[in-house]
Order: sequence, then structure tokens, then C-alpha cells
Amino acid sequence: MTDGKPTYIAVDLGGTNIRATHYLPDGTLLTRAKRPTMPDGDETVVDRILDTIREVLPAEGAGVKAISVGAPGPINPHTGIVLRAANIPGWVDIPLKQQIASCFNISTEIGNDANLAAMAEWKFGAGRGHNDVLYLTVSTGIGGGVISSGKLIVGVDGMAAELGHVVVAPNGPVCGCGQRGHLEALASGPAIAHTAQAQLRSGEFRSTILNYTDGDIEAVTAQHIGLAAKAGDAYAINLLAEAGTFIGHAIADFLQIFNPSIVIIGGGVANNVGDLLLEPMRKAMRERAMSDIYYRNLSVVPAQLGDDVGLLGALALAVETHPA
Amino acid sequence: MTDGKPTYIAVDLGGTNIRATHYLPDGTLLTRAKRPTMPDGDETVVDRILDTIREVLPAEGAGVKAISVGAPGPINPHTGIVLRAANIPGWVDIPLKQQIASCFNISTEIGNDANLAAMAEWKFGAGRGHNDVLYLTVSTGIGGGVISSGKLIVGVDGMAAELGHVVVAPNGPVCGCGQRGHLEALASGPAIAHTAQAQLRSGEFRSTILNYTDGDIEAVTAQHIGLAAKAGDAYAINLLAEAGTFIGHAIADFLQIFNPSIVIIGGGVANNVGDLLLEPMRKAMRERAMSDIYYRNLSVVPAQLGDDVGLLGALALAVETHPA
Repeated sequence: MTDGKPTYIAVDLGGTNIRATHYLPDGTLLTRAKRPTMPDGDETVVDRILDTIREVLPAEGAGVKAISVGAPGPINPHTGIVLRAANIPGWVDIPLKQQIASCFNISTEIGNDANLAAMAEWKFGAGRGHNDVLYLTVSTGIGGGVISSGKLIVGVDGMAAELGHVVVAPNGPVCGCGQRGHLEALASGPAIAHTAQAQLRSGEFRSTILNYTDGDIEAVTAQHIGLAAKAGDAYAINLLAEAGTFIGHAIADFLQIFNPSIVIIGGGVANNVGDLLLEPMRKAMRERAMSDIYYRNLSVVPAQLGDDVGLLGALALAVETHPA
Repeated sequence: MTDGKPTYIAVDLGGTNIRATHYLPDGTLLTRAKRPTMPDGDETVVDRILDTIREVLPAEGAGVKAISVGAPGPINPHTGIVLRAANIPGWVDIPLKQQIASCFNISTEIGNDANLAAMAEWKFGAGRGHNDVLYLTVSTGIGGGVISSGKLIVGVDGMAAELGHVVVAPNGPVCGCGQRGHLEALASGPAIAHTAQAQLRSGEFRSTILNYTDGDIEAVTAQHIGLAAKAGDAYAINLLAEAGTFIGHAIADFLQIFNPSIVIIGGGVANNVGDLLLEPMRKAMRERAMSDIYYRNLSVVPAQLGDDVGLLGALALAVETHPA
């Protein structure tokens, strides 16, 4: 089935599920498995990860060149330690790379999920053929990944490309990280919902958003705002446009910082509302252009990969570090 | 003298002078030459560059592995074309790399002066031993260069790391590039002088700065402000602190973008006033820290190299692309 070609195990560690796949280097799927992240009884999350890998691993790991795991950051890919994992309480300083590698005696890599999504889009998605890729995911948080001259930018502790944590409005709202005016605090899903809730509470605005929540302002989410915007609600459309504008302003700076040939926008919010976010974003980017050079050969596109972006990103990292 | 080792020619193209050196790979200087940039009569600037190179080139280029030129940007290092050169009127789309290479039949590289200064500090200065270096030059403009995992970040058109052109104050003054609130418009030498002039003109402030200009507000430069600050003038000290704060805020974002192990500050303004700029900068960086991880192993230091930083940067580029 694998024609003697080396194969790879990819793992996507999420807050709800652990998913594992057995891949050919080109992304052809051989097998897949899924288990809940949270263990029962005496098991640990690491046990769960190892069990999920076992489910897709060929007997004695035959032919498997590397195992690669994507996890929510912060992660140090150099040491292979997960410093903390959002959504997995108590996960602090877990030497995940070493634990997996020594269990299976197979080379193992780990990476931050946003960085790996960037690699997935670069190798298997919208960024194929490019060497300078800027990827931004707009979702519960805002994260990113950057490929420059064909190499992922990781930084000395593997903490680079935290693109949601740049200041776009110095007097803006406080971010989850504690700083003020970060992009994530202005344009992530929860940030958009929070803005809507505050404004609806003030009574100044009436909106079809509330049709989706039986008038319960506290229940408003970015999903409801997306639905209302798609139904033509002017207030919801404007909320998304404001978020898109902040994202566009941040990206204008990123162009001058990285000079990419393609900007790829992924993540739940962006995937859901598409051009309602992306068009205002593109307009804001152009308004902040310091030079046409950055825009002449630039594509600005939505992400192409769906639910498997994390798995394909782990594969991309594995193939990059342990070529077939 | 060269013991048969390959050698390199480095060229620093400035608005006033062209300087050329003949180097060993480790930076040992063999010969140097200098000519005015602006030609007489029928000569062109390119003729002047070629003549300056001839002055340091061994007979028939014997043993010279590469020629490398640093010039004020924007430059495309991939194509070797100088798109425009600040301070050299009429220089547009000059295929400098090809002109030099074909004249001497020696491999030639060109690079943006701020990028090359970053490479010089990395290979020969304050950044030795680091793989992730953020370099910022604070001078007539603000420019930068970034080494990530041991590679210079250049971007698809060679226009990356324009670190002076990021927005730090959305409603701030207009930048030379036409955009508003860029770091360069707030913290470069001319920007600091401009702020002082406007405030002194309003009559609100009296300052020893004016002692250096016979009371002529329009004559105030960053140099005068530096002298007054060093003499203890509180207003001048505060002007530099404000500029340092803007730089610190920008660097806090750059830490989250690049995760470097060292930040190096060079350029005329920074070299001249030192800690009067750097201390407020360090303080502002810490205030904007999203996580201690970025600061744990971080050095923030002044540049080490002096006038030859451009020449050593050209050498670093040459050795990197054409190893000895």
C-alpha cells in the first residue's frame, strides 16, 4: 500500500479530541483515529496521545520516518516541550517530544498549531509554490505563521509569529494576554461578540443578531453575528467590517515586516463569514500601503484546507525536518 | 598576505562617498579606498563605483571570491536592481549587480544598508553567537534587519524588515512614506527635531537646546537635542525619552513577531545619546510584554561597530552567499 515509501504519523492535539493519521509524504491518507482528549481514571493526556498514535501506527512502526504533533501553544519546538496548552488544564512543561519519541523509538517533532496551519497551507493548500507566506488564523484567538524564503520563522524559543499580539489600537480593549489594544482583543471571534454585547446592552443598537438568541444579549457569539450579517443586517455587517479593518491594518505592517508573496486568512471566523471580513480587510491594507512594491505581486486569499489543516501541518513539519 | 585564502571586496554606497575595501573572510582589512559619490562631467555614479572597486581590487581580481555592495534601499537583492537610492537623485531601477559582475567577471551581491548593518553586527559585532537577531538603526530614518534561525529575512522582493514603517500611533504625524503614525515619523532624528521645533515655536517650552542654535528654532537638530540632554536639560531628556518609548513599544511587538535572543540598537541618534534613548526604550518594552518568555534570555544592547558597519555588512553578505 505504501510501496515501500517512508510514511509519517501526524497528530492534532485539540482541547476536545486527539486525532492521529498515517500519511504518505504527499498527504495521501492511509488511516486515521480519534479519541477524546480528556482521560478517564488513572490515564493521562499523554497516555491518550500514545494510544491514539498506536491506533494508526503500523506494526513495530515499520516504515514510519517520523511522528509530528501539533498542539495549542506556547510550545518550544527546539526542546519539544509544551509550556502550556490552552484548553488542557494542568498541562505545564510537558516534554511531549521526548515522551513520544522514547515510547515508539521514532523521531518526533512538535509545533504550535497556528505555525503548523501555515505550513499546511504552504505545502498542501493556498500557498503552494510560494516561498514567502503570511498566514493568519482568525478564530477564538488570532494566531499566525510565517514562511520566509522557504523557512518557517520560529524564533529562539519557538515563540515567533504571535501575530494576534501586536498593538493596533494603543487605547483599545485589554487582551487575554493582559496587554491593551492587541489585534486579538479587537478582531477575534470573542472580541467581535464582546463589542456587540456592549453596544447592544447600551440600547443604542437594535439588530437581527438578537433574533438568533431570543433577545439574550449575553448569548451573542461571532456565529450569530455572522448569520445576521449574511442575512443583511447592517449593524452586523459593520461589526465584521470593523474587525476586518483592524486585521487589514495589522497586515499592512506585516507586509513591510515580511514582504510575503501571499497572505492566507484561515480560522473559524474567517471561514464562516468570508468576504464580509476579507473585503474590508483588503481595503484597509491598501489604505495603509507605504509602497506599491508590497502589493504588486501579492495574493490575498482565504485558506483552502478544512478540518485536517492541523494534521496536514504536522505532516508538513515532519516531511520538512525528516525528508522522505 | 592573503595566504592563498579567498578574499572579498566590500562596497558602501553612501550619498556623499563611495567606500570600498578588500577583506579577508574574517574581516581583516587589506586595503581601502574612498571617492565622492557624485561624479564630474560625463562620469556616472556607476563609473565612480567601478573606479573605487578598481582601486582595491588585486590585479585581474586574483583570489577575489565575490564583490558585495550595500546601498540605501529599496533594493531587490534577488534581481540585483537598485529601485531607488535615497540621496542619489535620478537613480531609478539601476541593475547594479549585473553591471559590476559583468565589468569584473566576479560574482556580485547587493543589499539594503540596514539589512547589511544587521548582518555585520551578527557576524562581527554585538550579535556574534546568536541565531535570532533583531537590529534597529535609529538615524535620519529608522530601518532594520532581522536574522531568524541564522538566515536574513529578505522577503519576496527583498523589501522585508522595514521596521521603521510600522504604525505605533495611529493618529500620529505623517511619515516620509506618506503613511501616518509610523515609528520613523515619531522617533527618527528628524522626527525628534521636528517635535522640538513645533513645541519651542509654541513658546510653551524654554530649553537649553536653543543655546546651541543662537535661539534659532528652525535650526534645531537631533544633535542639539542630544547635547542639551547630556548637559542635563530636562526638556531635551524628555524628548529623547518619548522617542525611546515609541521605539520600545514597536520592539515589544517585534519580540512577539520574531522572538529574537538579542536586540541591537544602532544608528547615529542611538550611538550619540545612548542610554538617554535606550533606558526609556527598555522600560517601554517591559511595559508591553505579553509574556516573560520573550524576555527571559533576551539581551538588549547598543551596536558595537562604527563607521565600517556597512562595509562589514557587505562582507558578511558576500561570505554568506559565497563561502570561503
